[in-house]
Amino acid sequence: IEAARAAARDSAIVGFQATSNVEAAREFGLEVAGTMAHSFVTAFDDETEAFRAFAQDHPTKTTFLVDTYDTLEGVRHAIEVIKELDLTGPIGVRLDSGNLDQLSREARRMLDHAGLPGAQIFASGGLDEFEVDELLRWGAPVDAFGVGTQLGVSADVPSIDTVYKLVEFEGRPVVKLSPAKATAPGRKQVWRGPKGDVLGLRDEEAPGPHHEPLLGRVMEAGRRVGGTPTIADMRARFEHDLKALPHKAAKLARPEHVIVHRTEELAELTAETKEAALRRLRSSD
Amino acid sequence: IEAARAAARDSAIVGFQATSNVEAAREFGLEVAGTMAHSFVTAFDDETEAFRAFAQDHPTKTTFLVDTYDTLEGVRHAIEVIKELDLTGPIGVRLDSGNLDQLSREARRMLDHAGLPGAQIFASGGLDEFEVDELLRWGAPVDAFGVGTQLGVSADVPSIDTVYKLVEFEGRPVVKLSPAKATAPGRKQVWRGPKGDVLGLRDEEAPGPHHEPLLGRVMEAGRRVGGTPTIADMRARFEHDLKALPHKAAKLARPEHVIVHRTEELAELTAETKEAALRRLRSSD
Repeated sequence: IEAARAAARDSAIVGFQATSNVEAAREFGLEVAGTMAHSFVTAFDDETEAFRAFAQDHPTKTTFLVDTYDTLEGVRHAIEVIKELDLTGPIGVRLDSGNLDQLSREARRMLDHAGLPGAQIFASGGLDEFEVDELLRWGAPVDAFGVGTQLGVSADVPSIDTVYKLVEFEGRPVVKLSPAKATAPGRKQVWRGPKGDVLGLRDEEAPGPHHEPLLGRVMEAGRRVGGTPTIADMRARFEHDLKALPHKAAKLARPEHVIVHRTEELAELTAETKEAALRRLRSSD
Repeated sequence: IEAARAAARDSAIVGFQATSNVEAAREFGLEVAGTMAHSFVTAFDDETEAFRAFAQDHPTKTTFLVDTYDTLEGVRHAIEVIKELDLTGPIGVRLDSGNLDQLSREARRMLDHAGLPGAQIFASGGLDEFEVDELLRWGAPVDAFGVGTQLGVSADVPSIDTVYKLVEFEGRPVVKLSPAKATAPGRKQVWRGPKGDVLGLRDEEAPGPHHEPLLGRVMEAGRRVGGTPTIADMRARFEHDLKALPHKAAKLARPEHVIVHRTEELAELTAETKEAALRRLRSSD
């Protein structure tokens, strides 16, 4: 429950337009969007009856889930109910299984043919960023995508090794030399500048003009310092940062690492501290 | 924090011997095991000094983390401190990076050569079940494995689609017919029997002798029914169930699905309900 709430909040920050999690929407002031459940449809004797009941409850914004029994039959039933009840608010159908490229084209044709060119097509069902991208590149007439599972888990990177590393102790810079786990010593600052991020030591001057320090004080005496950003603030910041990413790092297929430059001072301290550690290691032989 | 606590509890149920999560150990009565952090080692001027301080604090059970600077140098420093302080309790070294097969053999040779055949070797560092199995099959002299990240996440199955499906409504069995998402109707019972699990309808007789029903009442009027099982109870049940799994389903490489048989009554109800749903679908044409 807690993870779903966090996922809804995070999705709003990174640009999703709405959530189906009504509790998160209430708490964070997000837009709610969604449709009926398959169980709603199966609770009725037939699909048309279910759609009719749903439309009577949601006359101003009605999306029909059409794949409970057969997707294109479902589209036909949705059209029937839209005409019968003369629905004029935003209307649409949601495809939740099968070949979404093919089904969205057929659904579009049926809706247009029925004189409903404004009816929207929503696609969902285990989608991830690659499938959404593929459907869009193929030109599938999908107006909006619903992403759930693949937003809530990180299937391609299921864990991040976040490890506590000591970099300074009693004023002395320290390092770890394990193969592939070596660290850079000293207290750090990271600046975001026009040519990317620069990693340096905490007390250095900014490496040039227009460099924003990213590390700052956020807690003092157990209390947050400064105001609490709104979701809109965080979303604006996210969009700004995403735009600042080089294309090669932001592309979906084979993204390349962003190179974080290090200041000369940090490079020198790293070399010195490693050398000192190796010297101690050798002298203990 | 909550997830780590749950992971420690679950690991105890499925047979892990100890946890490094002291809070979970306190709460659930589990055995604590572990060693120093890399930051402990780097907080000292040199590794030998760090090991000496650690051994003085943990004289009765001492495991040295030896890979902060160089694993085999670390083993040498551990031996030095063991001899110097004449440690007699359970002692050991923990390898946390590099080629664990090779390093464990060299560490074993060094410890034996130093007259410490009882010193144990622990291996850790992003291990999963496949790497542990491989090290054991190669005969690496590792006495115990520490698994963390790959226990806390399910990297190969990062999500399970758990979906609410309606199977009965007002006494009427219902189904969903979506391709690859079709359901079996009616309230169910699952029996665990000598030839595997059998899925049937709730009110059927057990399909034979020695069949234990797995679904039972656990809550009544908002309260748990029956006692709370202990971790030991749950572990015993887990071990019993694991032993009952056919070998082909329990093996690490290419495990095969267990086939859950269905009773005739369930098969008949499924066929009838699907046919009725299709009939309604056709008659609505």
